[in-house]
Amino acid sequence: MVSSYMYGLGSRRSVIREIFEYAKVRGAEIGPENVFDFSIGNPNVPAPDCVREAIMELISEEDSTRIHGYTSAQGDLETRRVVAGSYKKHGLEISPDCIYMTVGAAASVTITASALYEEGDEFLTFAPYFTEYAVFVRTAGAELKVVPTTEGTFQIDPEALRERISAHTKGIIINSPNNPSGVVYSEESLHAMCAILEEKQKEFGHPIFLISDEPYREIVFDGKKVPCLLNYYDNTIICYSYSKALSLPGERIGYILVSEKIDGWREIYAAVCGAGRALGYVCAPSLMQKVIAKCEGSTSDISVYERNRDLLYNALVSYGFECVHPDGAFYLFMKSPSGDAYELYERAKKYELLLVPSDDFGVKGYVRIAYCVKTETIEKALPSFRKLMESYKEEK
Amino acid sequence: MVSSYMYGLGSRRSVIREIFEYAKVRGAEIGPENVFDFSIGNPNVPAPDCVREAIMELISEEDSTRIHGYTSAQGDLETRRVVAGSYKKHGLEISPDCIYMTVGAAASVTITASALYEEGDEFLTFAPYFTEYAVFVRTAGAELKVVPTTEGTFQIDPEALRERISAHTKGIIINSPNNPSGVVYSEESLHAMCAILEEKQKEFGHPIFLISDEPYREIVFDGKKVPCLLNYYDNTIICYSYSKALSLPGERIGYILVSEKIDGWREIYAAVCGAGRALGYVCAPSLMQKVIAKCEGSTSDISVYERNRDLLYNALVSYGFECVHPDGAFYLFMKSPSGDAYELYERAKKYELLLVPSDDFGVKGYVRIAYCVKTETIEKALPSFRKLMESYKEEK
Repeated sequence: MVSSYMYGLGSRRSVIREIFEYAKVRGAEIGPENVFDFSIGNPNVPAPDCVREAIMELISEEDSTRIHGYTSAQGDLETRRVVAGSYKKHGLEISPDCIYMTVGAAASVTITASALYEEGDEFLTFAPYFTEYAVFVRTAGAELKVVPTTEGTFQIDPEALRERISAHTKGIIINSPNNPSGVVYSEESLHAMCAILEEKQKEFGHPIFLISDEPYREIVFDGKKVPCLLNYYDNTIICYSYSKALSLPGERIGYILVSEKIDGWREIYAAVCGAGRALGYVCAPSLMQKVIAKCEGSTSDISVYERNRDLLYNALVSYGFECVHPDGAFYLFMKSPSGDAYELYERAKKYELLLVPSDDFGVKGYVRIAYCVKTETIEKALPSFRKLMESYKEEK
Repeated sequence: MVSSYMYGLGSRRSVIREIFEYAKVRGAEIGPENVFDFSIGNPNVPAPDCVREAIMELISEEDSTRIHGYTSAQGDLETRRVVAGSYKKHGLEISPDCIYMTVGAAASVTITASALYEEGDEFLTFAPYFTEYAVFVRTAGAELKVVPTTEGTFQIDPEALRERISAHTKGIIINSPNNPSGVVYSEESLHAMCAILEEKQKEFGHPIFLISDEPYREIVFDGKKVPCLLNYYDNTIICYSYSKALSLPGERIGYILVSEKIDGWREIYAAVCGAGRALGYVCAPSLMQKVIAKCEGSTSDISVYERNRDLLYNALVSYGFECVHPDGAFYLFMKSPSGDAYELYERAKKYELLLVPSDDFGVKGYVRIAYCVKTETIEKALPSFRKLMESYKEEK
């Protein structure tokens, strides 16, 4: 009666969804304040004031039919101008004509893959990776192939990439700072990756696109910066979302930037417009587009995430956990002392700690801890993490 | 390098898009106030005050992370409760569990078709029809077959439907009040349609779904009401959007309602959730979901459209044009005196009247006039319509 694939996607609960439901039930039993839910990347830091001010200004002063009316399919021109202008800080003059406003990063990636896909194409991504990439790429018609990274650091392993790239590779999706590891790919590993892509493009005689999914690029710590890949590799397409930096995940607002350095970028841009149309996206939400025109460049208070990172990472390491040091995003990747991610996940639940096993992210034996929670939640949860570690030590 | 299908969709300008571009150029030449653009269904009536008030209240009083955070994929529970409750006026007790909030009607139809599609399935629709249905249905993998209606009245022709339905028919998309004809399907024709669907379901031994795309259902005139199809036919799925009734077309907010009378409706609902996920929709825009919870049941000032309809229809008929009398939406379907839609379209341009030829809507020889403009625009345009008719008379 229905598509069995879609039914499967909609009815098989993801682990994160399972945890979400469990948290609700458990919270009702012992009080939600006693359940430490580190499972979801829903920012707990409010949007910056400029968002509220922009909304107030727009709905008070502007004509309703202009604020809430259709924009052109590629997005409001003024918004695209502001977005394009934001790349000046990277020394780039970007035309608004290569910006396509979207309903968030998931839409950006799905549209981009659908725009590029030709029969037989494959897309690559580095493990660990955001699980939904496999779904989005399959919607385009393609298969997602996973390239392992260096265990422990989770930096790009150039040789592993070289081995997996083939004549079928249409593009590679990268995500730095990375969900779920919190790793920021180093300049060296990015240069190495780009060199291999250049070499393989020549070998196969067709472009290989670098699809850079960057919702976390502003959330980096210790004064680090995420390099702008447009300056590293010509065949780059940026998929951006304001969900994390502006704490607007539910508003679904982001964009696709098709680099003008791509030979035939206008053709790709047209295919992006076509894919947006085919997938039922008429335009990105109009009020939020206009908010972005006023707030681009602002962020919510990212120092909270750095404070949370320091507090959590230092404590966990002092308890004896092995963790990947996160340079960005708001995720911490922690190794299971037993080597089994699910074992740690189940054991942590006994201490009311809700963590996501890493297996679905394409790496075994870790859990993801989303620390975009209130700092007090982390403070309150630390004794439970300590007891969790003690339970392993007692067994030895 | 790219998907040739997506490139085609994104680069081949639709006629409406051509007119949109022409209007900009012509407006720059002679002043935008001298170009009478009746091409686009972008409401010129502002959103009702409750929308502004709801936004103000939400951003002033509520926690930013709650207002702008992710909702569950199917939508905020409170919003779904309010939406479900709105069907009480039709004597129906609807569960929030069968409501899935979407990013507007285009998303609703695309998701529904993708959820239902199994290999070999076809969908039907009645001509004239909203052109994008063909695109959305193709995204699902299916073909759209067009069923002619009765020429002149554009009411459902039961025999034409009976002829086109086959064992491959998975569903039929209907749209009443209709874009582009403005026709509201009569009770008789709906009953006749449902009887045929019931008969054919039995004959083929599988359900045939009625997919009712209802963005215009509140915009009806002369005190008419659009019947609620949930009370007519069990296997009904409603695709709704607040774009037109609340004048929020750019905000992309609507829903899918899977009737609980469908045998196995939970399976369909799960497939809808899966298709939403596969197509890259994470959740409907969160602020607007909360606005809907406060404004469901309100509408913008629809009397403007009725006034516009009366003014335009009466004038055009008095000049000698043959028009379909529109009972709803904000479109008027006018016959080309030459019988050729494109000839009328080109000729009207000479009088600065921008009308859309009907051929793309699956019916030849008409133009669509979108009268969701300011009443003054119609008043100012009437002399041009008169001259347009005179130009035909002079030729005789």
